Amino acid sequence: MHLDHAGIATTDLESLLFCFEDLLNAEIAHEELLDGMRITFLDIGGDYLELIEPIGEDGTIARYLDQNSPGIHHLAFATDDIDAALDRAREQGIELIDEEPRSGAWGHDVAFLPPSSTGGILVEFVEH
Amino acid sequence: MHLDHAGIATTDLESLLFCFEDLLNAEIAHEELLDGMRITFLDIGGDYLELIEPIGEDGTIARYLDQNSPGIHHLAFATDDIDAALDRAREQGIELIDEEPRSGAWGHDVAFLPPSSTGGILVEFVEH
Repeated sequence: MHLDHAGIATTDLESLLFCFEDLLNAEIAHEELLDGMRITFLDIGGDYLELIEPIGEDGTIARYLDQNSPGIHHLAFATDDIDAALDRAREQGIELIDEEPRSGAWGHDVAFLPPSSTGGILVEFVEH
Repeated sequence: MHLDHAGIATTDLESLLFCFEDLLNAEIAHEELLDGMRITFLDIGGDYLELIEPIGEDGTIARYLDQNSPGIHHLAFATDDIDAALDRAREQGIELIDEEPRSGAWGHDVAFLPPSSTGGILVEFVEH
């Protein structure tokens, strides 16, 4: 398990990209459109920032930004066995957001845990 | 430059530690008391989570938790030349929180940038 990326909710992906490419010596690793979101993964020395901008008024991030300011949305931890990671969460009594892994950004298997169970942090497990 | 750690503000460090040691296969890498904060760095596959609990009612994190829920407080990016990193920020017109690096947690040189300049993220530069 290691810290794979931080997910950032933004209303201005282009400006943030411009800022971080220079400030953090970041390079674009992957770009896609997914479920009402424009997503760019920035590679920063082998770790990632996932910049997420809503497209339109539907979708997870649009709803998030209705209630919250732009900023850090989630932390993702990479595992080579996402099923085992979810089992450990269940054994802790955590009620999972995703009971089974699903296909997420970049085509990776992902599953989310509720912030109420993990100190206020929206935790994502990701298996590349 | 790479993603060094995410800083987590918590009112219950002990429980979060217990949760993450199991859930994320995390190990305690460093513990200290600093400026009204109890701090534990968790090693997660070579990356870190910095769990920060306020001691008493003064200090940065106590004031943060007066206004915000527990959760992700900042993202720290490691550099081997923090002065050059701050110069790049100045060239972008960012008004730094710390004009010069100062000694932070774990004895590392640190400097913070204001969230208003970086997409709502409190960014820390850290030089080990």
